[in-house]
Amino acid sequence: ANSFSVSYCLFLLQPVLMAPTPASMCTPLKTLNDSLSHRRRYMKHNFPINYTIRVHQKEVFKLSNINRLKLQVEGLDELVLQRLWFQVNQGVLKKIIRVLPERHPSRSYTAELERRFMDAEGVFVQSHPAEVFQQELPETIQDIWDSLTEEPNIVPESSWRFASPKSLLDNFCQTMYCLFSECFASTEAQQDYCGVSYWRKGRKKDLQPES
Amino acid sequence: ANSFSVSYCLFLLQPVLMAPTPASMCTPLKTLNDSLSHRRRYMKHNFPINYTIRVHQKEVFKLSNINRLKLQVEGLDELVLQRLWFQVNQGVLKKIIRVLPERHPSRSYTAELERRFMDAEGVFVQSHPAEVFQQELPETIQDIWDSLTEEPNIVPESSWRFASPKSLLDNFCQTMYCLFSECFASTEAQQDYCGVSYWRKGRKKDLQPES
Repeated sequence: ANSFSVSYCLFLLQPVLMAPTPASMCTPLKTLNDSLSHRRRYMKHNFPINYTIRVHQKEVFKLSNINRLKLQVEGLDELVLQRLWFQVNQGVLKKIIRVLPERHPSRSYTAELERRFMDAEGVFVQSHPAEVFQQELPETIQDIWDSLTEEPNIVPESSWRFASPKSLLDNFCQTMYCLFSECFASTEAQQDYCGVSYWRKGRKKDLQPES
Repeated sequence: ANSFSVSYCLFLLQPVLMAPTPASMCTPLKTLNDSLSHRRRYMKHNFPINYTIRVHQKEVFKLSNINRLKLQVEGLDELVLQRLWFQVNQGVLKKIIRVLPERHPSRSYTAELERRFMDAEGVFVQSHPAEVFQQELPETIQDIWDSLTEEPNIVPESSWRFASPKSLLDNFCQTMYCLFSECFASTEAQQDYCGVSYWRKGRKKDLQPES
C-alpha cells in the first residue's frame, strides 16, 4: 500500500513539477507569434527615432534574466517562469497602448496583440489545475512579482528604465520561444531558443539594412 | 531739384520700410497652408501621446513673441520678422524630420511641407531686392538670429525647450497668418491674425472632441 501511494503521489506531482507546455497552448501562442512577426513595422517605423517609454526595470525581461533566475533559484519550475512571463508582458503591452493616441497607425495592431495575448493567458490558466496558481512562489520570484504590481507612485526612481517599444516586443517574443519552446520546435536541428547565441544570430539579421 | 530728390528717395525707400507682402508670395504660401491644414493628423495622431522634441527656445516662436518684439524694437520692419520666420521654421522642420524614421507615416508629409516651405522662401528672396537681405538687423533680432544658428553643442542647457511637433506647427501656421496677413485676408470682416484673441477662439475649437 505504501509503495502504491508513493508512486500515486509522484504521478500526481509530475505535471506540476515538470510543467510541460500543454498542447492546447500552442494554437493561441502561434496566433500571438503571427502578430509579433510584424513588430518591426508597427513598433519601429511608426515611432520617432530613439523613442523610449518608461517601464519598470523588471519589465525589461530578457533571455539573460531567465538564465540568471534559473541559476539563482534551485529547482525553478518552468511553469513559474511562464506565469512571470505573462505578468511581465501584460504590463509591457499596457504601457505601449497607453502612449498611443486613439488614431495612431500602430494602435489597432497593439490592441490585437493584447487580445491575442489575453487569449493565450486564458488557455494557460484553464490548462493547469487551479492549485498550481495558488502555490507559493520562490522568494526571488515573489519579489519580482511584488515589484511589478507595486503602485507606480511608490516605485523608487532607480527602478525605472527607458526602453523602445520594439526592444520590449523583441524580449516578449524571444522569451516566449524559450519558455514555450515545445510550441516553436523547428523542423531543422533542435534550436535552443533559450540560448543567447541563437539570438545573437537573430540580432545580426535584424541589423541588416532594409530595402 | 531738392524737393525732387527727396520724394524720389521716399519712393525708393517705401517698399523696404513698409515691406508689403508681394502678391507673388501668396501662391506658395497658400500651397504651404494647404499642407499645414493636415497637421493634426500627421503631427498628433501619428506620434506617441505627450511626445516632445528638443528645440532651441527661440524656435518656440509664437504670436506673443512677435508682439513682444514689435514693442521692444522701435520701428521694426515687418520684413525683418518675415525673414526671422523663415529662419526659425527652417530649423523646426529640420528637427521634426530628423526624428522620423524613413518609413514613418508622417515622413513624406513632412518632407512635402519642407519642399513647399522652401518654394515659398525662394519666391520671398526673389521678390525683394538683394540689398534688403544685406541690411543690418536690429540688435535684438540679430541676437535671436545668432542663437538660432549656433553650433548645437555650445548652446547652453537652459536654452533648450521641449515642444510637441503639433504645437511647433501650430506656431508655424499662426505666425504665418500674422506676418503674411495680406495673403490670408478673409472675405468676412477683417480678421486680426496677429491678435492673440483670434487664436484663443481657434484653440477652443482645437480642443473639441473628434469624431
